[in-house]
Amino acid sequence: MNLIEKYIEENKDRFLNELFGLIRIPSISSVSAHKPDMYRAAEYWKELLMSSGADHAEVFETDGNPVTYGEKIIDPAKPTVLVYGHMDVMPVEPLELWKSPPFEPEIRDGKIWARGADDDKGQSMMHAKAFELMVKTNTLPCNVKFMIEGEEEIGSPNLGKWCEENKEMLKADVILVSDTTMIRPDLPTITTGLRGLAYWQVEVTGPNRDLHSGMFGGAVANPINVLSKMIAQMTDDNGHITIPGFYDDVLEVSAEERALMAKTPFDLDSYKKALDIEEVAGEAGYSTIERTGIRPSFDVCGIWGGYTGEGAKTVLPSKAFAKISSRLVPNQNHEAIAEMFQSHFQSIAPKTVKVEVTPLHGGQAYACPIELPAYQAAEKAYLDVYGRRPLPNRSGGSIPIISTFEQVLGIKTILMGFGLEADAIHSPNENYPLEQFYKGIQTIPLFYKYFAEMSEV
Amino acid sequence: MNLIEKYIEENKDRFLNELFGLIRIPSISSVSAHKPDMYRAAEYWKELLMSSGADHAEVFETDGNPVTYGEKIIDPAKPTVLVYGHMDVMPVEPLELWKSPPFEPEIRDGKIWARGADDDKGQSMMHAKAFELMVKTNTLPCNVKFMIEGEEEIGSPNLGKWCEENKEMLKADVILVSDTTMIRPDLPTITTGLRGLAYWQVEVTGPNRDLHSGMFGGAVANPINVLSKMIAQMTDDNGHITIPGFYDDVLEVSAEERALMAKTPFDLDSYKKALDIEEVAGEAGYSTIERTGIRPSFDVCGIWGGYTGEGAKTVLPSKAFAKISSRLVPNQNHEAIAEMFQSHFQSIAPKTVKVEVTPLHGGQAYACPIELPAYQAAEKAYLDVYGRRPLPNRSGGSIPIISTFEQVLGIKTILMGFGLEADAIHSPNENYPLEQFYKGIQTIPLFYKYFAEMSEV
Repeated sequence: MNLIEKYIEENKDRFLNELFGLIRIPSISSVSAHKPDMYRAAEYWKELLMSSGADHAEVFETDGNPVTYGEKIIDPAKPTVLVYGHMDVMPVEPLELWKSPPFEPEIRDGKIWARGADDDKGQSMMHAKAFELMVKTNTLPCNVKFMIEGEEEIGSPNLGKWCEENKEMLKADVILVSDTTMIRPDLPTITTGLRGLAYWQVEVTGPNRDLHSGMFGGAVANPINVLSKMIAQMTDDNGHITIPGFYDDVLEVSAEERALMAKTPFDLDSYKKALDIEEVAGEAGYSTIERTGIRPSFDVCGIWGGYTGEGAKTVLPSKAFAKISSRLVPNQNHEAIAEMFQSHFQSIAPKTVKVEVTPLHGGQAYACPIELPAYQAAEKAYLDVYGRRPLPNRSGGSIPIISTFEQVLGIKTILMGFGLEADAIHSPNENYPLEQFYKGIQTIPLFYKYFAEMSEV
Repeated sequence: MNLIEKYIEENKDRFLNELFGLIRIPSISSVSAHKPDMYRAAEYWKELLMSSGADHAEVFETDGNPVTYGEKIIDPAKPTVLVYGHMDVMPVEPLELWKSPPFEPEIRDGKIWARGADDDKGQSMMHAKAFELMVKTNTLPCNVKFMIEGEEEIGSPNLGKWCEENKEMLKADVILVSDTTMIRPDLPTITTGLRGLAYWQVEVTGPNRDLHSGMFGGAVANPINVLSKMIAQMTDDNGHITIPGFYDDVLEVSAEERALMAKTPFDLDSYKKALDIEEVAGEAGYSTIERTGIRPSFDVCGIWGGYTGEGAKTVLPSKAFAKISSRLVPNQNHEAIAEMFQSHFQSIAPKTVKVEVTPLHGGQAYACPIELPAYQAAEKAYLDVYGRRPLPNRSGGSIPIISTFEQVLGIKTILMGFGLEADAIHSPNENYPLEQFYKGIQTIPLFYKYFAEMSEV
């Protein structure tokens, strides 16, 4: 048992308790009633960084939720790693589907079950504890900075400005983030691409009040019928998005890279079985991995209108609503796409209704070249712990702030994810295997070691 | 001031208080938590009929909500009028749109504001009080029976069977109902046609759990996207319903009758202004009055799925739901239509999802010939009170039980409605003008008078 393994073994229960304390704070950033919880989480992180060995830690105000910053500078001549994570989590509805309460972590079947167990409380906690390990065992080879924000799940609307204002303080050689997944527990992966995002709420108004569907049905446009037709028109029979100009800036991926992607282990039958679907769906001409990795998507995330209670109420409703999102790929500008959607959606509205479109959030896609020394340091760290060289992987998810870091701070990010697909992030019964939690804490110090060595060369 | 007017004037405040007592019982039949309120309403009606002059009144159990029956038999040789009404009301959501609490009646601007003020507590109360008036002034010329049910708003699922079982008790020459509207307060109308109804709930299931829209978006069918496309396909660009065979049994209305209908006063501009819509919508080739009067409709009454809370949650939901209804016209069989929809909707579902269709309720359309003596008695009664001969009118609404009465009891129904379109039935801020309430009580005894006279001939 080496030094790292020994330290983890001796402190594993305390690590878990520190994570549980963080999980118990219901820091849902999209619900304004949880604002006080965001401050509790920020203070929790401040204490956590100090007790883990930071020289200094501080809660910063922003125009939205607070950011916790902490650092340990061992030698200005050494390389600096900036760790990014987020303390906020997704909403937990539908509550009735959770097997244990979302904010009361429970260990079952070797996994931690709770909202945030993986995304991103579990994964960011690994960095705090790996940092503690290096400090307490006198093996820290780099300067370390932590930046933990509270608005990632709502698109990090204030972090870009905060980075801008604190550029000097945030100076670093690389940004290190664990907020992504590995393909399988025995197959480590480093995410080299992230999709961008655009997200809108639409409101369709027909008559100025709910109407009797008998007296008016057939003569007055029903906003739900109309909204359905409008949504239906947004994609064609080939799964293409019909917004004019939508694909203009999409970076087409070379045949060579697509051939490499095709080597990623993927079993369509188990994929379908795991989701209990008879057939997958998507853009014609692309594989499932390509559909989420290199192609944009169009999903209605929520829809509502009219009577949704028990039984049968006959009503021709006044309004219908939807939350609509599109995942974007490298080179698509989320602001341009947001405007494109807005004007296109307005343009296909019939004169029988009024349509309002409100952009809710967005972010750029991101790509990380595998030639970066920091990427190679991460590769070696995984190889040591997992016994296998990790595959580079393009994720379908979005961490909009990653491309902002590149634009504002000029620093590339390494996405060392330890999550698994089965972790059900954003869903009921989110979970995180204990093994991944501890292996993460074991892998991260090796990244620091190799990154420091490579930087000395 | 004649006898009728004098009695109303002397008792008008008490009449109103008796109505208010009924309104205060939140008898929402579609919500099972209100079951006890249905029994309270049934007992209230029993007391009301007894205190109004019935020989006998009784609350009958059914497989669903109770029915209150009461009668006064003055002479078996005289004609018998069977009054039908309903004590149940529609749900009240969205509550925040009500200017005063729905079950706390308030008088403002000469109107009663409350759920059920018109539909059908206000309109059925007129019959109880007109009955009292005739009893107390010794002018009752017919035998009278009352049948007040508690499931009209959910399609009267048990009343047909109850009628079947009580055929002898319910024997009558005509059924009299006030549950419809007049075109304008100065233009009385008698409803001669009612649309039928079919109503379904549909459930579309994609993946077996809510998914991260980044990890899966673009590769797995989104049930909201799919449901929208399915709903969109149900009507074409001409406003025709696309279910194969849907129009096969529709009774096409003659050019002559359509020419007559075209004479009904109707101002498209004020119609659009009242609803705050720029354009009406509907089946090509038919006027607005025809679209609701003689043509079937297809309306989504409710839709829901995914994240519908505050802010932006990115999710690819597991399920999407809709409540869908179709208003039917004479000669269409609601059961055949229900099956047609069910199999068609299933047939257009892609293999990427599972679709369940549950019929929730339905009823046949109805037509009343204007040659009936009872129709002519109603005409004369309105003429006396309103100074104008009423127009026959085809209503877009449904009272499914009316056609059941004809099938089971073999009795035609006269629909003497006193509601107005502005009464906002089924909507927030339902109301009923005091003037219509009192004029109704004044008109009904005249119907009995003329009907008795005509029956003697």
